[in-house]
Amino acid sequence: MPALLSRMAQRLVIASPRMMATAASMQPAAVPEKEYDPKKTFYHKDLEIQLASPSQLHPKPTDPTKLKFGHTYADYMMTCDWDQDKGWHAPKIEPIAELKIHPGAKVLHYASELFEGMKAYRGVDNKIRMFRPDMNMMRMKRTALRAALPNFDGEEMIQILSEMLRLDSEWVPNSDVCSLYMRPTLIGTDPTLGVGCPSAAKMFVITGPVGAYYSTGFQPVSLLADSRFIRAFPGGVGAYKMGCNYAPTIWVGKEAASKNCQQVLWLYGENEDLTEVGTMNIFLFWKNEQGELELITPPLHRGLILPGVTRDSLLELAREWGEYKVTERTLNMHEVKKAISENRLFEMFGSGTACVVSPVGKILYHNKATDEYEDLMIPTMSSKYGIMQKFYDTINNIQYGRIEREGWMREI
Amino acid sequence: MPALLSRMAQRLVIASPRMMATAASMQPAAVPEKEYDPKKTFYHKDLEIQLASPSQLHPKPTDPTKLKFGHTYADYMMTCDWDQDKGWHAPKIEPIAELKIHPGAKVLHYASELFEGMKAYRGVDNKIRMFRPDMNMMRMKRTALRAALPNFDGEEMIQILSEMLRLDSEWVPNSDVCSLYMRPTLIGTDPTLGVGCPSAAKMFVITGPVGAYYSTGFQPVSLLADSRFIRAFPGGVGAYKMGCNYAPTIWVGKEAASKNCQQVLWLYGENEDLTEVGTMNIFLFWKNEQGELELITPPLHRGLILPGVTRDSLLELAREWGEYKVTERTLNMHEVKKAISENRLFEMFGSGTACVVSPVGKILYHNKATDEYEDLMIPTMSSKYGIMQKFYDTINNIQYGRIEREGWMREI
Repeated sequence: MPALLSRMAQRLVIASPRMMATAASMQPAAVPEKEYDPKKTFYHKDLEIQLASPSQLHPKPTDPTKLKFGHTYADYMMTCDWDQDKGWHAPKIEPIAELKIHPGAKVLHYASELFEGMKAYRGVDNKIRMFRPDMNMMRMKRTALRAALPNFDGEEMIQILSEMLRLDSEWVPNSDVCSLYMRPTLIGTDPTLGVGCPSAAKMFVITGPVGAYYSTGFQPVSLLADSRFIRAFPGGVGAYKMGCNYAPTIWVGKEAASKNCQQVLWLYGENEDLTEVGTMNIFLFWKNEQGELELITPPLHRGLILPGVTRDSLLELAREWGEYKVTERTLNMHEVKKAISENRLFEMFGSGTACVVSPVGKILYHNKATDEYEDLMIPTMSSKYGIMQKFYDTINNIQYGRIEREGWMREI
Repeated sequence: MPALLSRMAQRLVIASPRMMATAASMQPAAVPEKEYDPKKTFYHKDLEIQLASPSQLHPKPTDPTKLKFGHTYADYMMTCDWDQDKGWHAPKIEPIAELKIHPGAKVLHYASELFEGMKAYRGVDNKIRMFRPDMNMMRMKRTALRAALPNFDGEEMIQILSEMLRLDSEWVPNSDVCSLYMRPTLIGTDPTLGVGCPSAAKMFVITGPVGAYYSTGFQPVSLLADSRFIRAFPGGVGAYKMGCNYAPTIWVGKEAASKNCQQVLWLYGENEDLTEVGTMNIFLFWKNEQGELELITPPLHRGLILPGVTRDSLLELAREWGEYKVTERTLNMHEVKKAISENRLFEMFGSGTACVVSPVGKILYHNKATDEYEDLMIPTMSSKYGIMQKFYDTINNIQYGRIEREGWMREI
């Protein structure tokens, strides 16, 4: 690993603030002393890097397109501890290894945990870029507040993520259908069983290459829509990427699978409002009752929906294009059924980091009045409008550097 | 530790099923081969015990009454791994130590976790007993099903818990105001980031002595009642002891503390139905509008409420006593306010494993119509009926062996 070794030499010049204090006469600190506050954030400049020994480096996949999501990890992880008294300790990048967690740690009992999902792409120019990492950091900081976990500076984190990507650069697939998935995670670690604010926490980041989501073209999914299962509710935490939003969905996902559905269409309330699909946001393209072509996605203000980065990107693009009406509003199953019966619903798709877009082919709808299941066919794959396809192509072109878009891609 | 060493010799005769198979000609297996199925449960007879070295034994607290909840652990923990292919591995009891958990483990990302809270008491006859452990095991098994985590046999677990208590018997305080808290926990451990059923899991149990909840007599608590914060909802998992029910409450608890309230009174729905208080069930004793003395607690059927073991015990005792009407029904803030204004509300208290009962002295009610806070004073501490006090005394007498009650206490 000569590239790594040369970087090792480079890393050795990264000084901790304590080192800098003792060497103050030699060179000025890059960050003025008064701004340095480990109670508020960790710092990229404090980063300690422990390079992997040759035996700790893992073989890279021969065909990254075939990788299953979340099964393969790159060589390095980032960790950074926090405690109530001292604030953030120095962040570290080290070979990926099991974490040592006290069996009384809050994360294991009270789900004191949150995460982000983001990706880095190797562009057609061989440069590595992250997709809108500032958006993920904004959401992670909002979530940390709600989860009573410590906060931090998003830009410091992005710089640390960039360091990780440099160290693991060979893990970023050389393919324009693959990417490196990044999973920043924050957990409460103090070993005390009272239900309360964690007095210690750990930030960590693991990454891993992920394959082509659509190796044989788009695969439309079937959704189970059953208002007896609820993902989130007003006054809850559905708008935050906390681990607690996921555990309750696993059993419901099994129910869906037993009915040959790949995902759950999460409904809410008396009117069976559409909220999310699986772990994705949901979009519809239809002709509305006024005869206008319209892209619709449910709104964020009720707190029922995760503010997806892909969701935000699709809305921004669609509004820029100005080819049809773009609306964020509550939409219910009655409206969807009516539109289907009047042949006005053209496309329905999920949006998320994993797939960009995921076409919906069918909804298996549990009719609560009759207690019977109804097949609702969605003609997404035969739509003449190609709305979803244009989103997919555009986002992909931006992610792999074929189209430049200011402020979206962060080169490492 | 001569007692421990003599038990060590005793332990060595515990054979694993594999050992028993090879030694089949020497002695018959205690459990017939056909019933032995590690896909369904772990077995007490497979238990492997690793005794602590002298340096691994911790000093016991000099005054257990002063212990803060959940800060002190006994010397041993139980662990038992499960994987999809082989089922449950042999359970182990070993010195408490940090767990090694892969940073991609489901428990750290998707809150694949559940737990129980239960206690062992040293009776006035010096015998150690658990309080209704069968009830905790029933709830834990129900929760495991909902959390898509593996199931097990409750009686096998109770026998293993008894072994732990024998090993850590000196940690069970010699005091009739203290006890040993036990925390069985089940987490999803497979290191894959797809949101789905865990393919590996770990059961573990940690225990620790807890002090007097009321060292200076009952302390009435103030509750924040604000229907903008919701703990659980129909179609969710509020009736299961999953970690995911707790993380969202921590920030709300901080809000309550900032308004000088010790706990949150969780309301639900348009009518502001009372559901739980903090992590406890809630009871009211009043004269109802028909002029009857009545004990009320919210019902379980809506799935909004954890089926508490103490809750169940209080209801069983009250129905046996037959001194007043006992009702499980939905009760809302309007009814509570009306009863207070008519001087018909005599007592309000939480019920739970930690405290048995916890008197409510005040509700700080957020009036959603006026957006203002109202102080509602609850005269629990001056009630002439002594309902809460009788529950407390009776449960305590049963727990410390002063009163015998068939089927409730499990001697180790």
